[in-house]
Amino acid sequence: MDVEGLRAAAAAAFESDPGGLTGYGTAVGYPPLREWIARRHGVPVERVIVTNGSMQADAFLFDALVAEGVTVVVERPTYDRTLLSLRKRGADVRAVGLEPDGLDVDELERLLESGARPALAHIIPNFQNPAGYTLSDAKRRRLIELARRHRFTIFEDDPYVALRFEGEPLETMVSIAPDVVVYASSFSKTVCPGIRVGYLVAPEALIERVTALAVGAYISPNMVAQGIVHRFCTSGAIDRSIETVCRALRERARVLCEALAEALPDARFVAPQGGYFLWVDLPDGTDVDALFRAAAARGVQFVKGSDFLLDGGGSSLRLAYSGVTTAEIREGVGRLADAYREVAQAVRAA
Amino acid sequence: MDVEGLRAAAAAAFESDPGGLTGYGTAVGYPPLREWIARRHGVPVERVIVTNGSMQADAFLFDALVAEGVTVVVERPTYDRTLLSLRKRGADVRAVGLEPDGLDVDELERLLESGARPALAHIIPNFQNPAGYTLSDAKRRRLIELARRHRFTIFEDDPYVALRFEGEPLETMVSIAPDVVVYASSFSKTVCPGIRVGYLVAPEALIERVTALAVGAYISPNMVAQGIVHRFCTSGAIDRSIETVCRALRERARVLCEALAEALPDARFVAPQGGYFLWVDLPDGTDVDALFRAAAARGVQFVKGSDFLLDGGGSSLRLAYSGVTTAEIREGVGRLADAYREVAQAVRAA
Repeated sequence: MDVEGLRAAAAAAFESDPGGLTGYGTAVGYPPLREWIARRHGVPVERVIVTNGSMQADAFLFDALVAEGVTVVVERPTYDRTLLSLRKRGADVRAVGLEPDGLDVDELERLLESGARPALAHIIPNFQNPAGYTLSDAKRRRLIELARRHRFTIFEDDPYVALRFEGEPLETMVSIAPDVVVYASSFSKTVCPGIRVGYLVAPEALIERVTALAVGAYISPNMVAQGIVHRFCTSGAIDRSIETVCRALRERARVLCEALAEALPDARFVAPQGGYFLWVDLPDGTDVDALFRAAAARGVQFVKGSDFLLDGGGSSLRLAYSGVTTAEIREGVGRLADAYREVAQAVRAA
Repeated sequence: MDVEGLRAAAAAAFESDPGGLTGYGTAVGYPPLREWIARRHGVPVERVIVTNGSMQADAFLFDALVAEGVTVVVERPTYDRTLLSLRKRGADVRAVGLEPDGLDVDELERLLESGARPALAHIIPNFQNPAGYTLSDAKRRRLIELARRHRFTIFEDDPYVALRFEGEPLETMVSIAPDVVVYASSFSKTVCPGIRVGYLVAPEALIERVTALAVGAYISPNMVAQGIVHRFCTSGAIDRSIETVCRALRERARVLCEALAEALPDARFVAPQGGYFLWVDLPDGTDVDALFRAAAARGVQFVKGSDFLLDGGGSSLRLAYSGVTTAEIREGVGRLADAYREVAQAVRAA
């Protein structure tokens, strides 16, 4: 985290726009940041709302679009909080398989042809949480085609987009098809999580509905935080911050993949091109609950695959390489492999 | 607003606790600020949650306690957003009259004896919005007695408490009866609105329920903003800020009362001892809708009394003296009196 850059951004923001930072502001967000985001996405400012974190943006969007019984497509696996949030609203959640190049659009097409009428398809296109996979350009276009034909909205949930450390960036779906896509992102991964600033890009009518929900929830979001983010963006600090983060993530992902290949040859995974996460499939029948306990006893934490699924996922797990050093990664993979041998041995002995 | 103090607080906060400000933190709020608030109220830290503004705290509390059909007592008049928020949840809202020394507890007692079973009574004890009235110490104690006897929770909504410019501060109800009172306040009026930091003090079990709702809404609140508030508090800047604000409010309230007495002798009002607002009753039959239009034509804004009531309030209005200079107040009251003469004349002519 560029703490010095944040401190400088805070000082500059209070100095240049004291009234804008300290006042109530508006429910749509700090106007200069809203404009910066609109320019970044090449959309009119009326299509943007800046919120207290992107999770709050998701909540507003679900409140606007997802009533009891509404069908929502999600990826299998997907972010556990999204599943919780949809279930809490009584949504009819349909999980469609995820492949190394993103959502299995053939499976989605079959689901749609079988009569499913989703209002929304929730997609994390880049460096997905938990899988680390990225939706290919061809699949982005097919998904848009399906959304237009079957009249559902794509919720492009894109918090990791800036964290690409390999390969070329892909076009966002919202830039290809702004009529059928709602886009969410955040500054948690590029400025810092504690700043809690996220945003939505959506058709103007939907932004108006979300704005009414925002007024009801908190009158206006945090102007001080948004003023600091705005300065951090316009000063160029954000680009330096992204460069630093990506350099570290690239190295950590590389070390993790090497260490896994060497110490845990049973592990199947796809080397990520960005983001925080790596999804590991172990041989069918591996008891990941037992592995979780054996790893924890060795001081190693992961999230069980089953946490990201409505059902199944019993032999998979998610590793996060974002918050650990390369030395910790090497050591951790060694201990994980040791835990795996213990669990596999117990199965053979039984 | 003490912008220089805020800038210094931001710099000091990033310097002294970079990890605490930039990380996700916890759903209960930035720990040092939570502790500061707990000490201020003399309660264990487990009884405090710090939120993104006190309106968000209200929303969590209503989500926890107010389901469809639940009876909630409010003051008549009361804050319009509270009414909206309760109605949105389908609450059975019962408005009890407000007197210059606060809620008409006799009326509340009759309501309770007639069989009403409220879960909650929402009270703004100091410099009430919209009336500017303050609940007396004797009434605070009677209200607590009623809450204990009839087993309802008092929601002590106290954003203006620090803005007393006349008289002695009264004990908070939460300090007298922490078992039956939930207390909410905010830093919007003492640090700045744009910082969006509020808090609840409540029994631990309720704090736990609210914490679960906070996790679901936004994972954790704004750590950067809360870190800045914490520094602003511990450095003493908040005390200087409150002194400045109170000095200005005292002068503005004094000028407003004098100007009204002189220019609009038909106006009945109680000189406030703190806060932002003055409630004006005009003679029965005064057409406040027409007065609103006539005043607006003269560049003067107020809020109609009817906005703060379930019904009635036709001859009352709320004046806010917080955001205007004394010169503007004198000029504004002159124009309001002029508008009033026009409206009264039209009534006589009809």
